[in-house]
Formats: sequence, C-alpha cells, structure tokens
Amino acid sequence: TAMASCGWARAVRGLLLDVSGVLYDSGADGGVPIAGSAEAVRRIKASGLKLQLCTNETQATRENFVRKLRGLGFDVSVAEVTAPAPAACRLLRERGLRPHLLVHDDLLPEFAEVDKTNPNCVVLGDAAENFTYANLNEAFRVLIGMEKPVLISLGKGRYYKETDGLKLDVGAYMKALEYACDVQAEVVGKPSKSFFESALAELGVPPEQAIMIGDDIVSDVGGAQQCGMRALQVRTGKYRPSDENHPQVKPDAYVNNLAEAVDIILQHL
Amino acid sequence: TAMASCGWARAVRGLLLDVSGVLYDSGADGGVPIAGSAEAVRRIKASGLKLQLCTNETQATRENFVRKLRGLGFDVSVAEVTAPAPAACRLLRERGLRPHLLVHDDLLPEFAEVDKTNPNCVVLGDAAENFTYANLNEAFRVLIGMEKPVLISLGKGRYYKETDGLKLDVGAYMKALEYACDVQAEVVGKPSKSFFESALAELGVPPEQAIMIGDDIVSDVGGAQQCGMRALQVRTGKYRPSDENHPQVKPDAYVNNLAEAVDIILQHL
Repeated sequence: TAMASCGWARAVRGLLLDVSGVLYDSGADGGVPIAGSAEAVRRIKASGLKLQLCTNETQATRENFVRKLRGLGFDVSVAEVTAPAPAACRLLRERGLRPHLLVHDDLLPEFAEVDKTNPNCVVLGDAAENFTYANLNEAFRVLIGMEKPVLISLGKGRYYKETDGLKLDVGAYMKALEYACDVQAEVVGKPSKSFFESALAELGVPPEQAIMIGDDIVSDVGGAQQCGMRALQVRTGKYRPSDENHPQVKPDAYVNNLAEAVDIILQHL
Repeated sequence: TAMASCGWARAVRGLLLDVSGVLYDSGADGGVPIAGSAEAVRRIKASGLKLQLCTNETQATRENFVRKLRGLGFDVSVAEVTAPAPAACRLLRERGLRPHLLVHDDLLPEFAEVDKTNPNCVVLGDAAENFTYANLNEAFRVLIGMEKPVLISLGKGRYYKETDGLKLDVGAYMKALEYACDVQAEVVGKPSKSFFESALAELGVPPEQAIMIGDDIVSDVGGAQQCGMRALQVRTGKYRPSDENHPQVKPDAYVNNLAEAVDIILQHL
C-alpha cells in the first residue's frame, strides 16, 4: 500500500520548484530557509534529476534573487530560475512590443535591452513604493491612449505578507487598470499556461515526466496540472489546512515539506 | 405629432438633475456654465416644479460644491444636493458601521459626526492625491482584517478628465480592493438604486412623477429608469453620438441641453 499511494512518484525526470514557501520563508533579514530544503536541492542534483525554480518574484533581478538564495545555502544558478520578467522580455520581442514599465526599481535591469521608446503596451510588476497616484495615472494614460490597449501583468497575486504587514500585490493594481481601460491583462507568471511551458522548456523535460512542487494550491498546483504535470502541495509557506478542501484543485499528493517529497521521489527512481 | 413625441413630458412634478455635463462643464478655473442652464434652473423653480441635484461628486463637501455652483450663477442650495457622502453617512448610522476613510481631504467634514473608532468598514471616495501606496495598503489591511469585509464605494467611475489629463476614478481603486479581499463593494452613488431612491425621497415626488436629466447614458439614464423614473439624455457634457446606439439603455428622449428639456416640460404642465 505504501508503494501504491506513491504512484505519483514514478517516471520522473525533472522537478519544478516554487521558491518562497518551499525553499525559504521570506521576511525580516531576507528570509529563513525551510528545514531540509537546502539539503533536498543538493540531493535532487546528485540524483541526476533536472531542476528548475519556477517563481513569480518580480522585486529583484534573477541575479540578485539567486545571490540571496545562495546566501541562504541553496546551490542554484541564474539559469535555473524561471521568472516573469525574462519571460515578459521574450514575449515583448516576439510581438514587437515596446513597454511602458510600472515595476520595482530593482527589476529594471531585466528590461535594459528592451526598446522602450514610443510605448505600445504597459508592463506591470509588483512595483511596491513605485505604485504612486502619479505613476498609476501615467500607466493608465499610456494604456487608454492606445487604439487597442495591451496590458501585461507579471503575475496576478492578491497580496502578500511582509514583516511590517500585508501588502497589496500586483494583481490588485492589474484589476484597477483592467477596469479603467475595459481591457483584460495578459498574465506572465504562474498560473499562466505559457509560463509553465517556458519553465518546462528550460527544464528540458516533457510535462508528463515533470513534477511541480509548491505551496500555493491554485497558482502552483492548479496551474501545473493544467499543463499536464503532476503537482504536489507542501505543508509549508502559505499552505493552510483548508487548502485540502479546495473545491477545484486537488494535488497529486500532499507532502510535509520539500525534503519529504524528494525522499519519496528518489526512492522511485 | 409634436405633442405625441413629447408624451414623456406629461404629469411631471419634480426633476432630478445631474450636475457636471448638465449644469456646467468642469475643468480649468472651476468650470464653465452650459449655455441656458442657469436660466433653466430659475424657470424650473418659478414653475413650482420640485428640483434636486443628483451628483456623484466626492471631492468636496456639499457646502463647497454649492458655493462653486452659485459662483457660476446657479440658484441652488445645500438641501437641493443629493451626493454620495451624506448618503453614506446615513447608511453608516443605520447599520452601526464605523468607517476607515480613504477619501479626499476636502470631503472629510461630511464625516465629522461619524464615529470612526475601531473601524468595521472601509469607505472609499475619489481620494485623488490621497491614493498613495501607504494609504491603499492601510485600507486593505483594515478590510482583510475583518471577519466579513465591508467595502463602501462612493460611486464607481472608471476615469475622468482634468485639465492636466485623464485620472483614474474611484471605481478603479474599488476594483483593486475588491480583488485583494475577495469582496464585492456596496456602491453609494449613481447608478445604485438606493441612491436614486434617496434623491427621490429628498425631492418628495414618486418615481412615476419624476424625470432624471443627465449626460451619462448608463449612470444617469439607465440608473434612473431602473427606479421607475423617466430619464432624458442631454447632448452636452460627456454625451457622444454613439450613446444613441447603446445596446442596453434607451432614454425616454434626447434633448440638446437642459434648456430645451425645460422648455418642453413647462409646455406640458
């Protein structure tokens, strides 16, 4: 019966890992690693399984994000991070879009190579302190001035917790601009299908041989399953017991944490 | 045939008038009166018809709003203005709600008598420069901290034009908070039915004997008709010819301006 209940762990060649809530908990002093996760990342790599981090982080470049994770003990590289900003840059190039950016200052280097003259779209990230009345009106005017407004949102989170309290996430500002301009944003980031497909392409493994591991029942688990992947929910990070009664999404399995998931997967290689 | 086409003008005892776009055009230097509108207001009063202004203005107290209108030549008093803030105050009293306010500084005196300690709802107006990142996060935290969040929005406009460009209106920020808190705002102001009912109560005339006159096909005309009133659209203010093909709303008549509407109504008294 133990073997039967772990059927989800068979025929795996690669793992997609959410970061916040799976590898570490963000917060004061840059966050703290979740027990066993750094060791779990090392074991994945030693096993020959492929690994890619799949995150909606938009308050830092991948370089700075990876620097922080390495400082917390995680053996990861920039090439192993799939994040919304680089995916958005590819989308902009493919479609000849020139963005007006409303993003965090620390994210701007990701868009250094992008033509931003005479904008024909707006790219919205978690701009935090840059979400001023003036900046929101400016982004709105750029959008409403287009014949057909194009709004690209880096994720659509509702809110998140920081050490000084809850903060509105990018999704709230996305909804404000959607309503004002009567337009539907294109979301680049989890749970969008094309974002998971990018992550799979970078992982180099087809969906049926990949497992997503995350703490968000909708964005991580639901999104990955929509792409044909198996998906596990960890009982760390933003996990709540009520997630196990979610009306729409049911993970392939629950695991207590990343370390337990890796234990089971490695036993089935 | 002239008489037949004016059937809408019979058996009228009172008029509800929208203000911006009907009495005056807002803009530089406080706005300019629309030709014939000040005289039309005088003629309404001289005829014995009852009159009430029905506005979504939330950037000033009624006192200051009326002072501006009188300066533009309109013979109106504070008691003749139905505006969202006083309606919201009544609603707060009736339901024992203590608001956290995110509104324009100039509107604050309307809430002077309201208990604002230990808030159990959020009231959102067109806060303009008060729509800061910090103030939005604070309003959000108050809301999300409630067992059952109550969000009251003074109108739900998408945007408006000022002399220095387009500005996001309160509706955009309402949508941001609705999404973040997974809650539906209660709108106090046009086109809400209870707001028109308040205006009718202040007018002292039942809906079937009242006519609403406005420039907004949805908020003025559609809202009033939902309450059983007749409603005219003026071809001034934000009126556009395309309004005459609106898929859902058809006014009882179009008039070139308030003066023409009053001409016809007075002929049928």
